[in-house]
Formats: sequence, C-alpha cells, structure tokens
Amino acid sequence: MKPKALIVSADAFEDSELLYPYYRLQEAGYQVDLAAPKAGTITGKNGYTFTANLSLADVEDAGSCGYKLLLLPGGKAPEALKAIPKALDIARDFAGSGAPIAAICHGPQVLAAAGLLRGRKATCYKSVAEEITAAGALYEDSETVVDKNLVTARQPSDLPAFMRAVMTMIG
Amino acid sequence: MKPKALIVSADAFEDSELLYPYYRLQEAGYQVDLAAPKAGTITGKNGYTFTANLSLADVEDAGSCGYKLLLLPGGKAPEALKAIPKALDIARDFAGSGAPIAAICHGPQVLAAAGLLRGRKATCYKSVAEEITAAGALYEDSETVVDKNLVTARQPSDLPAFMRAVMTMIG
Repeated sequence: MKPKALIVSADAFEDSELLYPYYRLQEAGYQVDLAAPKAGTITGKNGYTFTANLSLADVEDAGSCGYKLLLLPGGKAPEALKAIPKALDIARDFAGSGAPIAAICHGPQVLAAAGLLRGRKATCYKSVAEEITAAGALYEDSETVVDKNLVTARQPSDLPAFMRAVMTMIG
Repeated sequence: MKPKALIVSADAFEDSELLYPYYRLQEAGYQVDLAAPKAGTITGKNGYTFTANLSLADVEDAGSCGYKLLLLPGGKAPEALKAIPKALDIARDFAGSGAPIAAICHGPQVLAAAGLLRGRKATCYKSVAEEITAAGALYEDSETVVDKNLVTARQPSDLPAFMRAVMTMIG
C-alpha cells in the first residue's frame, strides 16, 4: 500500500505551490489526496485545474490517521480556508497526532487561525508576516524554516528548499 | 561545485513542464541553466515567467560539456525551437556526448527535427505522435519511455513518472 499525503486547498490557489508538491509526492510513491471545501474541480490563479477527491467534511470524518503529511499551498485559498472551521479542525487533528505539517506562502494563515503557530518558528509570504506574528509565531525571513514537525516557506521560488525539507522530514 | 542541467525552451512553454523539472533539479542540488532563443524573460501559456540566463547562441558557443542533462519541456515552445538551427545543434551536441536527454509532451518535436529519434523508442503528446513516427521514432503510448539515455513522456500528468526516470538516470 502506498504511503498517503494530504493537500488541503481551494479555488484561487497559487498553481505552482500545489502543482509541485502534488507531483513531487507522487514521484516519491505517495498517494496524494486533495481536499477542498467541496470535492470536485478547483482552479488556480493561473488557470490550472485539479480534482479534489475529498471534501473537508470527508477528511474530518476519516481523520488524519494514515497520512504522513498535511501540506497547505498558498495563493488566495488559505484566506478562504481559515474561515472554515472544518479546515482548522483538520490542521489541529494533524498537529495533535504529531504528523508533519508543511505550509508555504499564504498557507501558514490556516495554521495561525487554528492557533498552531504559538511559540513556533515559521515563515510565510511577506504580506502575511504580521498576521502570523500576531498569532504568536516566531517569524523568520528565510527560504524554509523547520521547527520540529513544522516546515514553512515564503514563496514559489522557495519550492526547491521547501520540498527538500519536506521529503527529508517524511523520509 | 554543483552539477549542472540545461533546460531549453521559449515563450508559450507548458508552464508545469518547465516549472516542475526546474524546481525538482534545484531540489536535488543542481544548478539549472535555462536557455531560450534570446536570454531574458520567457512567458508560459499560463502566464508564469522564468528568466533564461543563457541564449541558444551562448550554449552553442560553450557546448554541452559539463551538463548532466538536457531537458525539453512542451507547450508551443518546441514548434518555435525546431525551426532554429542552433536549437537542433545543441540537441545533437548532447546526443553526441552521450549525456541524458529528456523531453515531454511537444518537447520531442525538437529531437525529431534534429534527426535524433530514428530507431529510438519514444513517446510524446498524442497530437505529435505522427510527426515523431515520420522522423523514425518507435512511438509508444506510455507515461514514460526510457531508451538508453533518452527519457520521454506524454503530458503534464506524466511528470511524476517522467522526473522519477530522469532523476534515476542522472543519479
């Protein structure tokens, strides 16, 4: 059975930040589940479409058990997700289980809203730095920040360092 | 010194097929040079921009020496490249040196025009199958085809298998 990873996103995601981890995890042999507010097609800022095979409700019902990773791409999707209690519950469930969590660009907004960044070293897109700092994160302007089971990065050009850290963390 | 890989493309590239290998090779520690008809910004079909740090003339002058890989993304770029003698000369130089060559989607059009697919097992985007067959390729409808130092694939959804084969080939 393939190891499983979960990507949570929504419409208006930053295409490169979904596309690269989605393919990269498959390259490494992972089954990648993609969850969105509703199952079905989601469309990125640059027009790429991906099929969310799960809804947030599906994931909340099944729980984080069996997943090696939760990954949150950026774009405008996290702004929508952070207002959805199910999205925050999923992030808390992963955090509670100790599974690795990775977030890039605007992705850390979801973790901030879920109260998961308090006292944690993290980075994010520069325009979001104030928001995660207000949520208690110890913000660093670095291409990738690793704090225990948490990996964060700033922007698409950080994807090589971000996914290198993610792949190292999940083995 | 980092190992080096070369991506050759042009405007109207298929964004995912440039973006994924570009970041993936960097993730693995490669210096990735990007060559286009002219050095400077190139823009993909979906609006992503990348900076070509080299022109085709720069590469032709320096030669393939020192590169571990030539990679040709798809989109509409290969249709333009196949009409440029310098692009064909670069592909022939890599083939002559025995360095790995990887091409996806419309990318094999360049190799067909350079006369490098005669008798070689290869795949490509379905609409290009007739063109590469006419150039002597032994076309297969598979997600990734490896024939000695040549790796080809059909489309963006083949990127995980394509880059798994490329990374295995270049070690």
